[in-house]
Amino acid sequence: MRCEVVAIGTELLLGQIVDTNSSWIGEQLALVGIDSHFQVKVGDNFERMERTIRHALDRSDAVICCGGLGPTQDDITREVIAAIMGVELHRDEAVVAKIREMFESRGRVMVDNNRRQADIPEGAALIAEMPGTAPGLVCPVGDKVIYAVPGVPHEMRTMMEGTILDDLQRRAGETAVIRSRVLRTWGNSESGLAQDLAERIDQLDAQGNPTLAFQASGMEGIKVRITAKAADEAAAEAVIAAEEELIRALLGDIIFGVDEQSMETVVLGMLKERGLTLAVAEGLTGGVLSARLSDMDDTMAIFRGGSIKDALADAGQAATSIRHDFGADVGLAVVAAQADDNQPPGTVFMHLDIAGRQHVQMVSLPGDRARFRNYAVINVLNFLRQTLAAL
Amino acid sequence: MRCEVVAIGTELLLGQIVDTNSSWIGEQLALVGIDSHFQVKVGDNFERMERTIRHALDRSDAVICCGGLGPTQDDITREVIAAIMGVELHRDEAVVAKIREMFESRGRVMVDNNRRQADIPEGAALIAEMPGTAPGLVCPVGDKVIYAVPGVPHEMRTMMEGTILDDLQRRAGETAVIRSRVLRTWGNSESGLAQDLAERIDQLDAQGNPTLAFQASGMEGIKVRITAKAADEAAAEAVIAAEEELIRALLGDIIFGVDEQSMETVVLGMLKERGLTLAVAEGLTGGVLSARLSDMDDTMAIFRGGSIKDALADAGQAATSIRHDFGADVGLAVVAAQADDNQPPGTVFMHLDIAGRQHVQMVSLPGDRARFRNYAVINVLNFLRQTLAAL
Repeated sequence: MRCEVVAIGTELLLGQIVDTNSSWIGEQLALVGIDSHFQVKVGDNFERMERTIRHALDRSDAVICCGGLGPTQDDITREVIAAIMGVELHRDEAVVAKIREMFESRGRVMVDNNRRQADIPEGAALIAEMPGTAPGLVCPVGDKVIYAVPGVPHEMRTMMEGTILDDLQRRAGETAVIRSRVLRTWGNSESGLAQDLAERIDQLDAQGNPTLAFQASGMEGIKVRITAKAADEAAAEAVIAAEEELIRALLGDIIFGVDEQSMETVVLGMLKERGLTLAVAEGLTGGVLSARLSDMDDTMAIFRGGSIKDALADAGQAATSIRHDFGADVGLAVVAAQADDNQPPGTVFMHLDIAGRQHVQMVSLPGDRARFRNYAVINVLNFLRQTLAAL
Repeated sequence: MRCEVVAIGTELLLGQIVDTNSSWIGEQLALVGIDSHFQVKVGDNFERMERTIRHALDRSDAVICCGGLGPTQDDITREVIAAIMGVELHRDEAVVAKIREMFESRGRVMVDNNRRQADIPEGAALIAEMPGTAPGLVCPVGDKVIYAVPGVPHEMRTMMEGTILDDLQRRAGETAVIRSRVLRTWGNSESGLAQDLAERIDQLDAQGNPTLAFQASGMEGIKVRITAKAADEAAAEAVIAAEEELIRALLGDIIFGVDEQSMETVVLGMLKERGLTLAVAEGLTGGVLSARLSDMDDTMAIFRGGSIKDALADAGQAATSIRHDFGADVGLAVVAAQADDNQPPGTVFMHLDIAGRQHVQMVSLPGDRARFRNYAVINVLNFLRQTLAAL
């Protein structure tokens, strides 16, 4: 089963928008075992869109067209697909009513142009999910299929996850359900992880299901993805849960989160669970640590604040005094080693004062200034995470 | 003149890397008036790469292949292009020597695989710029041309700007030089800008050169791009300089920078010029303001530091006390209006204390939390910029 992605929009070719949709779709297709050999960007031009989609349909079993479903005269994906199918468009009044409702629920009035979004090629089916005003389409062409989804990323994703990925698998004769979970790690190299999991990977290679894959993601650590195939969703989730337990036992506390969880989300959650508040003294990270924490803590109920200063002489003292200044339970300080500390370049001191008890860690970091700062932020958050877990 | 972009790499199709190169190339091509109707991503597969590049060459006059020039067995762009040209590869020993030198200057040893990067199709020319270990290629195919550039963004850009854009224009029979400059604005809408420049735009439409274009860039403001065509670079720059002067006179101080200058770079530059240091109290922006400032001020010689706190009752007082705490010349405070301030939701107070003199501005901002914070940051930086300019 081969599926090609066609991203539609002149703004993509002009570089005004980066096409992240195709990348995301490619990742999802790979996860469910569907090949995607080509991804094409084409402008809002009837003849070129038609040629591109026909060509894609020649060499693949399915084509996902992303974009060109909006209300303006530029948005001609519906018309092009109808031409390829050799059918007319008809206006679906139920869809018109749905679009009008959406506008009214947002206190806006539907303009006439929006009716165009309800034009459906004869023989096409609507995608059940419709998070915006553009319906998605499933358009059979012989024994092949064209899907049309909007270019708005969250609308496209909802339709991919709700309908298209399952439909593609069904067409591929795949009756199994494929699900995956990412375990997020910090503190070991990819080869280190591979070594720790070598025996388990050999077992899984022999047994075929679930599978493990590593993905190095720079400042976000290394992801370990568990992918399981099973008769239904519940069974797949059970396989994943069992595998996750095994891997957690093997890797220990370098796993900081799951799927989309970030290090700061996890740390804030742990503080909240324990009823603790936090204040930080940034002697090195210039506000990046505070910005990440406050971004995830709307009301600043847990992360109470911090101070930013280049020259923090004594990190231990700084941790204690920031804790007192903000009346917080946990004071955290991160500073760079000074020349008279006699440490190798790139050395960072991390200090915690948790209700008067001191915890200290030193780490040596690589990278230019921007990378160095970001490494320091994730390391100090990870230090706080591990210290809280051990309390 | 039509130029197609082929981005090469299985990791692009799998969504492990987002293809930002094609977007950037598309933008550059548009700037010099070269059409790009299609952009294709293809994996590291000989047959599919060959088919894709041949197809691109059929329907376009030039093809830019981006990626697949590395040292590993996956990197086969050189071989595919040689096959399309119908020629053999030869190893260019001068290039081998250059690659070896590069490794040695970084204290590393060249491995044998890297020699492959010096394999050049017969009849191809080397691109003069070679910022990494992969040489770029200009490969004639009849009266058409294939360019090969590395996938490493800065290497690709250096070759595009140094050689390919000019070569494409020469092939297009364009003897003129095209140059552009972006004036970056904050504080007016696109339609407001269009109105302020309406008369000038009419004049330019009649005269044809230079041209003006707007590009709304969200949190980075609205860009006004001046593009000039002239016999040589000096003449083009002169046209741009004259136009910039005219536009600055029409738009006034909403222009905060030029080309890649960010608001924080500009503000830090102005502080430095005036011999002033800065400290900030973030009552709303949670560290984002400090992170942006410290990112551009390595040594924190100008941005001395700041504090982050959710509830800052009195912004005027906060600006003065942060100035004193850090011994800075300028104290800045940004806070959200509280319920008892009787202001509309989204109101932000911005206070400056410049050597004891107070400056205040209030602004009402839209957006969800993340956008709101970022809007607040750029607005307060802009307020500081305009206040400094008027001192």
